[in-house]
Parts: sequence; C-alpha cells; structure tokens
Amino acid sequence: MSLNEEVDLLKKIPLFAKIEASKLKLLAFTSERLNFAPGDLLCRQGDPGDSAYIILEGEADVLINTPQGEISVAKLGKNDLVGEMAILIDIPRTATVKALGNVATLAISKDLFFRMVTEFPQMGVEIMRELAHRLENTTAQLREARSRAS
Amino acid sequence: MSLNEEVDLLKKIPLFAKIEASKLKLLAFTSERLNFAPGDLLCRQGDPGDSAYIILEGEADVLINTPQGEISVAKLGKNDLVGEMAILIDIPRTATVKALGNVATLAISKDLFFRMVTEFPQMGVEIMRELAHRLENTTAQLREARSRAS
Repeated sequence: MSLNEEVDLLKKIPLFAKIEASKLKLLAFTSERLNFAPGDLLCRQGDPGDSAYIILEGEADVLINTPQGEISVAKLGKNDLVGEMAILIDIPRTATVKALGNVATLAISKDLFFRMVTEFPQMGVEIMRELAHRLENTTAQLREARSRAS
Repeated sequence: MSLNEEVDLLKKIPLFAKIEASKLKLLAFTSERLNFAPGDLLCRQGDPGDSAYIILEGEADVLINTPQGEISVAKLGKNDLVGEMAILIDIPRTATVKALGNVATLAISKDLFFRMVTEFPQMGVEIMRELAHRLENTTAQLREARSRAS
C-alpha cells in the first residue's frame, strides 16, 4: 500500500478524521500493521500492555475472567480502539481480546500514543469521549446489577 | 486575590501542574470561582450540564438515585474534577453532587474546557488517565456485583 493510500485509510477512522492528512503521515510511518488469525489474541487479561490497537477490518471478542469462567462482555469491530487502558494507567490488560475471524489492526506503541495525543489534541478529545461513554455504560450496568441484587 | 496568586493556586492543582504559568493566566481570567454552602448542589442528576468543577477547598458527596433511594457512591475533595462527563458526551448529569461543608470551586464552562484541552494536550492526557482509572474501578465493582449475584 502506498503512503497516500495508507493516509486515506487512516483518514476514514473517526479518531483521526479531524487530523490533517499531512500529519497523518507520521502515524502511517510509525504505526505498525498487525494481522491476527481467527482465535489469535490481540492481548491477554493480566499481561502487561504496551500497545493499543485500532481495528481496521474484522471483529474481536472482549473476554473477562470471572469465578464462573471466561465471559464475553463486548464485541469490537472496524474502527474500534482497544488496549488504551493499560497504556494510560500502567495496569495489566483488563480483558482478553480474541480475533473472531481474520483481524487487521494498526498497533500503536505507548510512546506513539502519547506523542499523537499531545500533537493532535483533537484525538485526545475523541478518546476522552470514548472513555466517558464506556464509563457511562459501565456505571449504568453497575446500577442495574446493584438494584437487582438488593 | 491577585492574578499571580490565582496562578500559583492553579499551579498546585495536579491537572494543571505541567502547564506553564503564563498560560494558566488564561484559565485564571476565564474560569469562574463558585462557592457552595453546606447542602448546596454543585449539580443535580438528570439536569443538563454545561460546566465542570475543580474543587479548590472542601468536600462533596456524589449521590445517585436508585430504586432504593439516593445512595452515596463517592466523596470528592480538594483538586478533584467533577462534572466533565456531561460536557464530554452531552448527556444529563449522571449524579448529584452535594457540598458537605463550605466548598470552593473553579467552574469551567464547556467552551473553556474544550479550549483548554486543545491548547494544553497534557491536561487532556491527565483527564484521560482519570477517566481510565474511574472506568477500571467501576468495571472491578461490576465484576464483583455480578459474581455475587450469580
């Protein structure tokens, strides 16, 4: 894929939509394409994490260990960002992410992640929004679980 | 309070610690000091939200409505940021925040909030980290509530 094609592809990812094409070249140069076969793990709960992934194609399952075994808590698809939690707060991976079919990703190292959100604050705003949405969903689920339990 | 004193005060808030003093003058100029008496509400669950608050002094209780009535889910104190969820994702306030004693805050409007995280990406990184911590805590509580329920 040529650099321009790569930039066009990045431009279609909502997280980068507001970043100038000329600046996306940095990302196209420094990020890494990683492909996963069905059943491969993008990351494993409990492992240290040093990359985030943007899913370019395919679907993945988010699994967490519970006393009742591994349960699926979410599905990820095209353009989803995953793995940024372990980068942001230096904790082990909070979930296992397993490829459901062939999955193509853009792997973004911790260094590149921080360089990008510093250089492109709009990307930081989008990530804040994404985290806020997830927090709102998780809080709603917690409220429901607690009201069922009482 | 003089502008320099105000900037010194802002400099001690971890969220702004890495921002140059000269730039904090913008914040000192454009943010608003809001004081709350014991029992006053900084915000009410369900209301639209157009400001975030940084607590400068005092403590506040975070309350949510449940079928069993209002319950306290967290306490906030000096330097805590609250109210940014409704700003980030345009949802009504997700909790009521009540002053436990006299509470002094810095009120940051939606416009100023986005201007600041765009101009000072480091502040965006700190907010991302804070949201990631909260998400991790809430997810851990949800896991626990679900394993108790099953």
